[in-house]
Amino acid sequence: VADHCAVGVSAVGGVLAARGKRVDLFGIVVVALVSALGGGTVRDWCLGDLPVLWIRDSSYLLTGAGTGLVTFFLARRLPLPQRGLLIADAFALALYTIVGASKALTFHASPAAAVALGVVTGVAGGMMRDVLLGEIPAVFRKEIHLYATAAFLGCVLFMLLSLIYRPEIAAPIGSAAILTLRLVSIRWKVGLPTFAARESG
Amino acid sequence: VADHCAVGVSAVGGVLAARGKRVDLFGIVVVALVSALGGGTVRDWCLGDLPVLWIRDSSYLLTGAGTGLVTFFLARRLPLPQRGLLIADAFALALYTIVGASKALTFHASPAAAVALGVVTGVAGGMMRDVLLGEIPAVFRKEIHLYATAAFLGCVLFMLLSLIYRPEIAAPIGSAAILTLRLVSIRWKVGLPTFAARESG
Amino acid sequence: VADHCAVGVSAVGGVLAARGKRVDLFGIVVVALVSALGGGTVRDWCLGDLPVLWIRDSSYLLTGAGTGLVTFFLARRLPLPQRGLLIADAFALALYTIVGASKALTFHASPAAAVALGVVTGVAGGMMRDVLLGEIPAVFRKEIHLYATAAFLGCVLFMLLSLIYRPEIAAPIGSAAILTLRLVSIRWKVGLPTFAARESG
Repeated sequence: VADHCAVGVSAVGGVLAARGKRVDLFGIVVVALVSALGGGTVRDWCLGDLPVLWIRDSSYLLTGAGTGLVTFFLARRLPLPQRGLLIADAFALALYTIVGASKALTFHASPAAAVALGVVTGVAGGMMRDVLLGEIPAVFRKEIHLYATAAFLGCVLFMLLSLIYRPEIAAPIGSAAILTLRLVSIRWKVGLPTFAARESG
Repeated sequence: VADHCAVGVSAVGGVLAARGKRVDLFGIVVVALVSALGGGTVRDWCLGDLPVLWIRDSSYLLTGAGTGLVTFFLARRLPLPQRGLLIADAFALALYTIVGASKALTFHASPAAAVALGVVTGVAGGMMRDVLLGEIPAVFRKEIHLYATAAFLGCVLFMLLSLIYRPEIAAPIGSAAILTLRLVSIRWKVGLPTFAARESG
Repeated sequence: VADHCAVGVSAVGGVLAARGKRVDLFGIVVVALVSALGGGTVRDWCLGDLPVLWIRDSSYLLTGAGTGLVTFFLARRLPLPQRGLLIADAFALALYTIVGASKALTFHASPAAAVALGVVTGVAGGMMRDVLLGEIPAVFRKEIHLYATAAFLGCVLFMLLSLIYRPEIAAPIGSAAILTLRLVSIRWKVGLPTFAARESG
């Protein structure tokens, strides 16, 4: 159930990112699916766990496409709860990242590779969405505050806890850490420095 | 033979999309190959049918690169038959999509996943081409009329027919449906709604 | 050792390409890793040699991320040796390309497919970096002079020599040819024609 919620939330995020772009209804469904399933697809390609998840279990495909369609028609009529969406998206980030890192561990990836794959699973869908929409990926931008960084730090915590505790204990703590970091960084506008150091301080 | 024609037509489309961009001859060959083989490559990654098709049978690589080169030199001298190219491209879309969906079925993908993979095979090459050239993928744009949508609907028809008839009967009907939908949508300027509902109607 | 140098040099190139873009520190590390490991990752996806290299041996991941971080902090303070970086990058291109082509041969790829995979290994990381940063890939641009073309020609030479000599002899000669072509093309500003033939010559 949590998986499908994460797919749905990411699909909604994809649809909203396409707002105002010259993208038609079908493109919006594609963008929704790329947002929702892109990270897991790249993870499965890297691990060699093929066919990829959404071929083995196409319910994810239907959840993503269905949510995308419903969002498209709703968002033309109703204002969306921005705050609720940010929290739901942080939840999806936390879930995807820890699921990705856990899966990498079951494929005997080293801790560093598992952290990398966790972050890839969490953020690659959104990155591909932004590239398709002709933008520099939002996860890189200072205005977004800690996003990939929250995923990274929570993933490192998860790996450290995995050395001591069983995954069933380490995973929820890692996810909670990502969720907390993400929400705290939005609330207090915490971000990382950029390269253009002179201008932006 | 039909496969190689589709590769060639897609390569021509790739070269023409690079016209006027600051892309050199080698870049144009790369763009031609990405247009022609990108969809099938992503499909093989997703299905786990590796090495990918153009490594197992490099004649596709030579057809794509050769067509790209010839087009580059011809198109600097001659006007190209725009109408003929649109029809040939619709033919390639129809062929790629149904080949992709059929291949997914032989890997025991569910109907929904097979439709998704068919559409990916049909449109991903062109999407990657547009991203490399710094544009929002044309398949998403209203001005292109039904493109990915034609592939999707023809693919659904193919899946329905596959439940009743053998693939040798279902595949040509599905392809014909895609070709017809695509050409009809160009002729009568049929398109899907976009998100910016107020402005564009 | 040479492998890790190539990873490091590519990571530095990735960081420098992100200069002046609105990309935060984490994004810069991601761009560095994509530049350094992107080509090999796509190669392993295509060959089906999974999990990909950096999951099996995560020292590459650490070299890339570490170099990216160090470069980020150094480059904010010190001017970088532009000439030295161009030469180091040409060295990395030569190494990646021939390693990619050699690996394809060990997977029984045909000569044409091995050349294609060699070039992909050499240039795909930089292409993905440029797409993430919202630019048309630099390897396609005339101002860059021979880059992918140098990789292609050196790779063809490597394949021809492989027919006669053992790989241990053919590989260094192929690499040297790529390095030489690349540096000669920068020194004498040799480039390929573009499509916009009227305007640019």
